[in-house]
Amino acid sequence: MSRLIEALRRLPGIGPKSAQRIGFHILKTGRGEVEEIAAAILDLKDKIRLCDVCNNVTESNPCFICSDPARNAKQLCIVEEPGNILPIERTGQYRGYYHVLHGALSPLQGIGPEQLRIANLTERVNGGTVEEVIVATNPTVDGEATATYLSKLLKPLGVNVTRIAMGVPVGSDLEYVDEVTIARAMEGRKAI
Amino acid sequence: MSRLIEALRRLPGIGPKSAQRIGFHILKTGRGEVEEIAAAILDLKDKIRLCDVCNNVTESNPCFICSDPARNAKQLCIVEEPGNILPIERTGQYRGYYHVLHGALSPLQGIGPEQLRIANLTERVNGGTVEEVIVATNPTVDGEATATYLSKLLKPLGVNVTRIAMGVPVGSDLEYVDEVTIARAMEGRKAI
Repeated sequence: MSRLIEALRRLPGIGPKSAQRIGFHILKTGRGEVEEIAAAILDLKDKIRLCDVCNNVTESNPCFICSDPARNAKQLCIVEEPGNILPIERTGQYRGYYHVLHGALSPLQGIGPEQLRIANLTERVNGGTVEEVIVATNPTVDGEATATYLSKLLKPLGVNVTRIAMGVPVGSDLEYVDEVTIARAMEGRKAI
Repeated sequence: MSRLIEALRRLPGIGPKSAQRIGFHILKTGRGEVEEIAAAILDLKDKIRLCDVCNNVTESNPCFICSDPARNAKQLCIVEEPGNILPIERTGQYRGYYHVLHGALSPLQGIGPEQLRIANLTERVNGGTVEEVIVATNPTVDGEATATYLSKLLKPLGVNVTRIAMGVPVGSDLEYVDEVTIARAMEGRKAI
């Protein structure tokens, strides 16, 4: 029991209390159901891999996005993590392809360009069909540094490099938005 | 006692429990201190008024911003509420003047242009020194409708009308940003 609790505690978002609660829940659950969970966990590790083209997590290779010929091959959106693709897909407005870096530049944490999946990115951009690279790394210090780095790296290859807009989130109230964001929203203002 | 609790309950953010707690606290507090609170409340109502120029709340008229000649008279930033000025001031980057509408257009709530303080806005813009009107109404449906209305009203007077940028807030993680905001961030992307 304590071995399971120790193992569960290492998962993100699960503290000692949750781990204990899950442990006791499994004790009460029938063997069949428990075997299903265990099998699903192992299955995930065996079947899921990274797409050779975009580095997204996938069961098939290339992934379902990279193998969809209906998408716009002129646009390539760069994100830090596989989890960043879903929110962009949910907008229903972007129809280009993606590229996952698996991180962002972070000198303090010793993460340089070699630690990111940039080699197959320059390859893709060199391929000649991409016209615009949209850098959708996070609006953080590391994400911004990565955006600047990618711009310097990719513009000489003859593509437009753009950055998603920073500003006040839709539906928010200015009164509760932090001043750094408001400063960016003021800087980024546009004629209407 | 119940009269005070009823009165306190009507204040924003104070529920029946908080009202009761404040009531009992006042019972235990010395008369001098209580008189101070009561005087401060009455004082606020007597001394605070709206600035004739920008409609901000103020003790002096014109307010301390409108009477500051060091500010940039070419820029005028329009906000919905007096509380929206402070977050913009905190950025330390905007040095123009302000104009408070005291609301936003909301057909559903019966708020039209007549209910907002627009009369002295067109007067100010007609004055001739303003070159850019920055619409910093909230990034909501009402705020956007107000921005569109003001653009149509003020552009014929010969000024540039701009809107603060909507996008992902600084320091956030794309994974936790709603899709409407991400869609706006993608739309508003800029070359880097």
